[in-house]
Amino acid sequence: MSTGGDDRATVRNKQVILKDYVSGFPKETDFDITTSTVELKLPEGSKSVLVKNLYLSCDPYMRSRMGKPAASGLAQAYTPGKPILGFGVSRVIKSGHPDYKEGDLMWGVVGWEEYSVVTPIPDMHFKIQNTDVPLSYYTGLLGMPGMTAYAGFYEVCSPKKGETVYVSAASGAVGQLVGQFAKMMGCYVVGSAGSKEKVDLLKNKFGFDDAFNYKEEQDLAAALKRCFPKGIDIYFENVGGKMLDAVLVNMNVHGRIAVCGMISQYNLENHEGVHNLSNIIYKRIRIQGFAVFDYYDKYSKFLEFVIPCIKEGKIAYVEDVAEGLEKGPEALVGLFHGKNVGKQVVVVARE
Amino acid sequence: MSTGGDDRATVRNKQVILKDYVSGFPKETDFDITTSTVELKLPEGSKSVLVKNLYLSCDPYMRSRMGKPAASGLAQAYTPGKPILGFGVSRVIKSGHPDYKEGDLMWGVVGWEEYSVVTPIPDMHFKIQNTDVPLSYYTGLLGMPGMTAYAGFYEVCSPKKGETVYVSAASGAVGQLVGQFAKMMGCYVVGSAGSKEKVDLLKNKFGFDDAFNYKEEQDLAAALKRCFPKGIDIYFENVGGKMLDAVLVNMNVHGRIAVCGMISQYNLENHEGVHNLSNIIYKRIRIQGFAVFDYYDKYSKFLEFVIPCIKEGKIAYVEDVAEGLEKGPEALVGLFHGKNVGKQVVVVARE
Repeated sequence: MSTGGDDRATVRNKQVILKDYVSGFPKETDFDITTSTVELKLPEGSKSVLVKNLYLSCDPYMRSRMGKPAASGLAQAYTPGKPILGFGVSRVIKSGHPDYKEGDLMWGVVGWEEYSVVTPIPDMHFKIQNTDVPLSYYTGLLGMPGMTAYAGFYEVCSPKKGETVYVSAASGAVGQLVGQFAKMMGCYVVGSAGSKEKVDLLKNKFGFDDAFNYKEEQDLAAALKRCFPKGIDIYFENVGGKMLDAVLVNMNVHGRIAVCGMISQYNLENHEGVHNLSNIIYKRIRIQGFAVFDYYDKYSKFLEFVIPCIKEGKIAYVEDVAEGLEKGPEALVGLFHGKNVGKQVVVVARE
Repeated sequence: MSTGGDDRATVRNKQVILKDYVSGFPKETDFDITTSTVELKLPEGSKSVLVKNLYLSCDPYMRSRMGKPAASGLAQAYTPGKPILGFGVSRVIKSGHPDYKEGDLMWGVVGWEEYSVVTPIPDMHFKIQNTDVPLSYYTGLLGMPGMTAYAGFYEVCSPKKGETVYVSAASGAVGQLVGQFAKMMGCYVVGSAGSKEKVDLLKNKFGFDDAFNYKEEQDLAAALKRCFPKGIDIYFENVGGKMLDAVLVNMNVHGRIAVCGMISQYNLENHEGVHNLSNIIYKRIRIQGFAVFDYYDKYSKFLEFVIPCIKEGKIAYVEDVAEGLEKGPEALVGLFHGKNVGKQVVVVARE
């Protein structure tokens, strides 16, 4: 452990600052890129770590942290004037924490900046043990979104071989994995996304049985009926709103809906009304909201399962990589317009 | 067994006929009372029973059977020109079925008429073994609504001692029992209903901790906040629409919503939109639709539990009794305007 000592180098620390609480769709101009400096040391007796951030993750839930505190959902609101926070992959530069030493790699919540001082918290920070996979994967496949897909599909959906599975936002960080997990279980899997390029990815890269571009469908319920003539057993919900309404009329008896996100609603002042909820009774549907942090006790089991799948090529994974912290706001904002193709990552530094 | 023989008496058979498929609120004029005759015999070799109907049950789900077949939900549409069907208590007059003999009492699905010929079907017809309780209770507390409350609360809500429970339509056949089951488990229980008389019943007869008249509340979410300052752990959903929206913002993390019915929506051409579904994610809520017929294997266990409760006065039960089949349409239609106080029963004959 080194908590400082003689090493008092001061370096530049670029940061992505939230200017003010956001309402409606976030814009690039909601953020400032500032440059301050940071001293590469920790105070005597600190239990924190000083990390150099390598990769940052753009995740839909971050929208809920941009609003005013009262309007926020699962996570605490960001503080205007401060760097925003998110999942990242980082290298430990200095450590006052007994579990981390200089040079260790970590994934977890850090600031959107070149260097962060964080106090590692279980289920928010994880030491990276397997480094023979691309490190950026720990922002997605091997990090929070991967665990979300794993827990959401295996623990929440109660899937059975031969069932029909529908995934919305299916080419995103979570959706692409849910679809592949479902195929591995022997389910019939259909995904939707918002462009031809993404639909091609679903069919040709991720092995979905079918896929459609929701932006080209006049009638979402009819599109789902076409893809699922015998109905949907499992819906992995990432979008909410009109899509949920269309799904409800196509669900089968005893169907399950795992609610991971509702990205179509996050930027609306008033959320869309969902009208077909009486299907919950008629079809005895179970709708279960979940959050990944309730399932992190299964993280090592997840890695044991998924790392061999990656090495054997059984799981495909697509990232959309933005180069440089300056590109962070654009990449993050783009998420809410579906601009990313695959998991959106921001590279701060490669080493 | 007697399937006819010499006994060829012909008797009057009054019937409640559905004139045509119903849209919007059902009206008394949607039904005709007709008088035909029935021969008190069964064809040779019949496996059916001829029953004299004593008590008929008015249940909200019956609305879904009045609409056109495509618009129907859980149960099959009624046939215009024929008697409507519902749960009732009946005495067997003739039997071709090995499980029933003349004089047996039965509860289950029969026509709204004085005499019905039915083929007993497991989980739709049950022989009444305990006759030292009022027979009409088998349309409610000891029949389908009782089992609905029992399965819905104990099996679907996953209740724990000390949790907070909210029941809508709380003075109805199912709600009054759910509230009492929840109290027996040591929960804090609040109910809502649509009149002062019903609210008084909830507080003074059924032992709810608190109750409110939803028609007198300007802001349902505020009313629930007042009754549940620490939030709702369990919601037993009978009404849907605006009430569900108000509940969602008051639910606690890991809350459960058992969806038994949505009576506020059944008569609307377009169901109300529910806007606060993103709380499902933020609070990791489970919403579970259920139907009683998935739980009838627990019926004898239920009777073992509930009959002693009735005899020891641990469970209160209120019926709203309409005298005579002619009063059936009025009683049934009244259900959708909340006119009934307690379980709505129609007496066809007392013996």
